[in-house]
Amino acid sequence: VTRRAALQSVMSRGPASVTSHDIAREVGVSQSTVSRALRGDPRVDPATAARVLRVAELRGYMPNASARSLVTRRTRTIAVVVADIKNPFYPELVEALHEALGRSGYRMVLVNERTDTRGQSGLAELYRDGGADGAVFVSVTIEQRVAELLTTSPVPSVLLNRDVAGADVDRVMADNPGGAAEVADLLYGLGHRRIGYISGPENTSTSRDREAGLSKALAQRGVPLSPELRRVGEFTHHSGYQWATELLDRPDRPTAIFCANDVVAFGALDAARNLRIEVPGAVSIVGFDDIPMASWGAFALTTVRQPLTDMARDAARILIERVEGNAELERQRLVFPTHLVQRSTTGPPPS
Amino acid sequence: VTRRAALQSVMSRGPASVTSHDIAREVGVSQSTVSRALRGDPRVDPATAARVLRVAELRGYMPNASARSLVTRRTRTIAVVVADIKNPFYPELVEALHEALGRSGYRMVLVNERTDTRGQSGLAELYRDGGADGAVFVSVTIEQRVAELLTTSPVPSVLLNRDVAGADVDRVMADNPGGAAEVADLLYGLGHRRIGYISGPENTSTSRDREAGLSKALAQRGVPLSPELRRVGEFTHHSGYQWATELLDRPDRPTAIFCANDVVAFGALDAARNLRIEVPGAVSIVGFDDIPMASWGAFALTTVRQPLTDMARDAARILIERVEGNAELERQRLVFPTHLVQRSTTGPPPS
Repeated sequence: VTRRAALQSVMSRGPASVTSHDIAREVGVSQSTVSRALRGDPRVDPATAARVLRVAELRGYMPNASARSLVTRRTRTIAVVVADIKNPFYPELVEALHEALGRSGYRMVLVNERTDTRGQSGLAELYRDGGADGAVFVSVTIEQRVAELLTTSPVPSVLLNRDVAGADVDRVMADNPGGAAEVADLLYGLGHRRIGYISGPENTSTSRDREAGLSKALAQRGVPLSPELRRVGEFTHHSGYQWATELLDRPDRPTAIFCANDVVAFGALDAARNLRIEVPGAVSIVGFDDIPMASWGAFALTTVRQPLTDMARDAARILIERVEGNAELERQRLVFPTHLVQRSTTGPPPS
Repeated sequence: VTRRAALQSVMSRGPASVTSHDIAREVGVSQSTVSRALRGDPRVDPATAARVLRVAELRGYMPNASARSLVTRRTRTIAVVVADIKNPFYPELVEALHEALGRSGYRMVLVNERTDTRGQSGLAELYRDGGADGAVFVSVTIEQRVAELLTTSPVPSVLLNRDVAGADVDRVMADNPGGAAEVADLLYGLGHRRIGYISGPENTSTSRDREAGLSKALAQRGVPLSPELRRVGEFTHHSGYQWATELLDRPDRPTAIFCANDVVAFGALDAARNLRIEVPGAVSIVGFDDIPMASWGAFALTTVRQPLTDMARDAARILIERVEGNAELERQRLVFPTHLVQRSTTGPPPS
């Protein structure tokens, strides 16, 4: 029933006004050549195929996107691959990408898929089907396998936000080590010497780069990051809550905790609230990202601002240049400066 | 340069192993008939076209999604139309839709577009191109124009979350009036008689239905909703903050405020915090939706739970049935019961 319905729909909606015979007559080739050319058959001489394509477009012979993309192998669709759309960090980036792509006439397919688990079914299918002209990876993990997947991708890809070494693709990132070093400077300057760190997953470049930046800057000040005050979790409220509770319950608890992102910091703030430990009187808490919620009164979080909109816009721009065939474009690696935003969760350590 | 590159790509990647001649030979028709049938030319007899389609599929003649959808007029893509992806309410629904659609082999195109402004460029283009087999509208507004747009949509559509009268489509909603009536019962039972309401936009069914439910239930108790304690805003933190500040600054301030959704309630909580008005000691605050953040310690918000995952799953199921041609399916209107979740923002009024 389904196939019949689809077929009837084909029958009743096929292009009736201009036929392949009309195109054949105008170009001066046989109708079979027109069909072959439009189908991308390699037996048609490229110059002839180009003429067929031009006349067919001129006469409006391509009735819809499917026909057009069959000829051009272009779908004007970009896949945006995120690991967890529910993480409040991503909607910011997704909206900015959606707008930037839309302005250039591309639509966005959202693929919600982790790169650190097997079976990238959605993405693999999209590639196999030729369903996207390019892909923006917002949350890659650092496995060698992921670098290979990106390098051998059948369509141009760009890494936004997170990096993976060894992938032959364009990149748009924030200066994560630099942002974390600013946090180290702030906390050290306020007088903190026992500083905790709650990391996100260790297979993400953002977690690693932020820890490296913090660690290096603190070591330079002579107060190396203590492994005892370091915890590794997820980029979630739950993870921040759990590890901050554990850190704040220690007799030698830290006087400041740097969290790998804002959502983790919200969890840490909730842990302090639950333990009736005053922020920032008894403990300072810092995040990373400056998502809109960070400025809400409930949190008033000191954090590191990433210029997400600018980053998304540039990632879209570079990808579209690749998709549209700018072969001269060199490999891009854009690193955006971050900006420390001081609100109400940081102060001097308790005396 | 771009067109040439695209063309060369066509030339080098065309299907070389099975040709339309092979298909023609097997079906016993001319090669032109095969081309026409695959193109949906109405001059081919439907039974012949069906045989061509079957053999072509069998022999793997369709090289990619574009070719296949040219024949079937199907893209296995569903458009999900939301008004503001940054609103923390939507990611929940979007993820649930993404999963449900993915399980049935459909990908999701996200269209971030308001229905109450002109120029639905993204959606119009998607329709014109035949780029989607169906659409889920998550945040329609109630204008007559929107009902007409839905009714005349070239692909099946389903309304999820918000409704618009007069649209000939399927619907999946929560019991918004019922949920709001439960809030009225809770607040009345606690002893509140001066109850404020902060509405979302008046051109949304969710705002209207929640207010109607609250208003009717309160009137039945003999404490009609006072127009002086009613404010209309957006579904944003800012709107909740602004209107709650104004309501709480009045000499005859309400002892409880019902907010049209959780994000508005978070803004109201921040307003109370900023004015140093204790919650729930001096004022009770209630939201609607029960998004994950509502349970965070920073808010611990009393709210009305909608079964978003179940709603999204059923919306996807109904839409796919329509798309796949189940013509016998009657118009669906599913209304899911809500569930009151009491946390720490509600208590008796100050004595």
